[in-house]
Amino acid sequence: MENRRVVLASRPTGPVTEGNFQLEKLPIPKPADGEVLVKNLWLSLDPYMRGRMSDAKSYVKGVDIGEVMVGQTVGEVLESKNDKIKKGDKVLTQLGWQLYGCTKDVNRIDGSRAPLTYYLGVLGMPGMTAYFGLKEIGSPKPGETVVVSAASGAVGSVVGQLAKIWGCRAVGIAGGRQKCEYVTRELGFDACVDYKAGNLHRDLQAACPKGADVYFDNVGGEILDTLLRVTNLFARIVVCGMIADYSATQPYAVKNLRFVLVNRIRMQGMIVFDWKDRYGEALKALGEYFAQGKLKYRESIVEGLENAPKGLIALLSGQNFGKQLVKLA
Amino acid sequence: MENRRVVLASRPTGPVTEGNFQLEKLPIPKPADGEVLVKNLWLSLDPYMRGRMSDAKSYVKGVDIGEVMVGQTVGEVLESKNDKIKKGDKVLTQLGWQLYGCTKDVNRIDGSRAPLTYYLGVLGMPGMTAYFGLKEIGSPKPGETVVVSAASGAVGSVVGQLAKIWGCRAVGIAGGRQKCEYVTRELGFDACVDYKAGNLHRDLQAACPKGADVYFDNVGGEILDTLLRVTNLFARIVVCGMIADYSATQPYAVKNLRFVLVNRIRMQGMIVFDWKDRYGEALKALGEYFAQGKLKYRESIVEGLENAPKGLIALLSGQNFGKQLVKLA
Repeated sequence: MENRRVVLASRPTGPVTEGNFQLEKLPIPKPADGEVLVKNLWLSLDPYMRGRMSDAKSYVKGVDIGEVMVGQTVGEVLESKNDKIKKGDKVLTQLGWQLYGCTKDVNRIDGSRAPLTYYLGVLGMPGMTAYFGLKEIGSPKPGETVVVSAASGAVGSVVGQLAKIWGCRAVGIAGGRQKCEYVTRELGFDACVDYKAGNLHRDLQAACPKGADVYFDNVGGEILDTLLRVTNLFARIVVCGMIADYSATQPYAVKNLRFVLVNRIRMQGMIVFDWKDRYGEALKALGEYFAQGKLKYRESIVEGLENAPKGLIALLSGQNFGKQLVKLA
Repeated sequence: MENRRVVLASRPTGPVTEGNFQLEKLPIPKPADGEVLVKNLWLSLDPYMRGRMSDAKSYVKGVDIGEVMVGQTVGEVLESKNDKIKKGDKVLTQLGWQLYGCTKDVNRIDGSRAPLTYYLGVLGMPGMTAYFGLKEIGSPKPGETVVVSAASGAVGSVVGQLAKIWGCRAVGIAGGRQKCEYVTRELGFDACVDYKAGNLHRDLQAACPKGADVYFDNVGGEILDTLLRVTNLFARIVVCGMIADYSATQPYAVKNLRFVLVNRIRMQGMIVFDWKDRYGEALKALGEYFAQGKLKYRESIVEGLENAPKGLIALLSGQNFGKQLVKLA
């Protein structure tokens, strides 16, 4: 029995390639006092990982060359030197792209309430990002129009469904007809705009007949720039991700920022860690909505650690569909 | 005795020219019931006027072709058909670019507390813009660094002095050595960066050794884009003006918006009317600071209504120095 892990081999310039990663084999580590040895079952792939592959200034330190790629996992405890965790417990970890690892930093999760993988998505960081970003920065009022980009993704799908639960008109933006149909028919959004169709501004106007009051932005770039043109007075923009810029060698240049002044927009960047003292509140609310059948959710699964790079590349180019996971065992 | 007024003759494409205005002579109007006839003494020139000359969507309707240019004035009541105002009262009006006018919409001002013109500046809309924008959106904490552009102007000069009064490091941005020296030596800012010197990023870094926590933006464009690079975590950007864009045929394209995400910045557009129920609070605070000698203030005066277009053009290109006024009588 040996461990395998994926490390950062080189920093991408522009789009991520498989050559930026390297698969390594090494012995399974032994837990120190207070630690547990975890066998990772599932790895979450998320857009923020692109940022960690870069050495540009960001909100957290990047991954060093030769270091294991960061990521959240769901795993099973094989051996425990921690009084609070026992062998067989299912846990959430930050062990990253590897099959086994030792850590003190685990949270036990309850597989009887929801599938284990949901703690990486709708009941995990993506769900909480949607919950706090929309509630605390978006501040939607019933009857308002909430627009969200990457609407079929792990965060966006929850944002739009929360908007509906909270009495708003929910408008998604997604790439391609298949995703848009999923967003309206399965997730219950009122409309979804296909940004690949080539009429983004006109289509946004049609989907937001009363304008946009809240924009939950997961992508930045041209979509943000165009969305600014359909904002209402006192609109709120939740800046959650700029996936359009993550892989660009030159950042997209935003031309319509004057709408921030003209419409007295509040635009605010966020990461979910800012609400870490309130995760319990979000988990309770999301868990209840889920139990009531009000939160639908879709996963996209890649098999095997060795295919994680391919999975991330697909995610960053919008080819995935739903929450992206890697099945490790 | 006849009235003279300046009307909008054509909409500018790019920079404003004198040809966009026309001087007209006409009879002095008679006040209707409830109105007063005012002889305007002083006209305020302000950057927002550029926006009203355009027919692009903005927060208020633009000036129509042939209509008198908008603007705030200080005047004297010549005839009153309003019980609350009497002949000889000094009043603040919205009568615009003309020598005489009739209106119900006047506020009496007290020339014994401060010079009449100060009600168009430090104790008027510009002062209140600085007060509410900095206090309510900038939310500066003692010890933080507050940066303001157009720092020698009517709004910017008050922003920086308030920042000092409230315990912050105040850093100005202005065009040319003369303005920068005024900002540091006369107004008491800790530093002032000359954006014309050609090293904006480096000079901002030097002036903000601990980074920028609040940026009060009167100009937008390249200065905003560069400032984003020196922001701290959780910085606040008060979007008060985009003078750089007002006269551009193509808007400046902002490349560093990713810092909004990276630093979880809150960026918010404002106009002072949003706090109109609290003008009394601002007037009281500004009046006290002024009486205590803590608020210094400079005026730039153009003589005669016929020179108002030249005055606005100078203001929009940064050639003025201090609060820009037109002396009408």
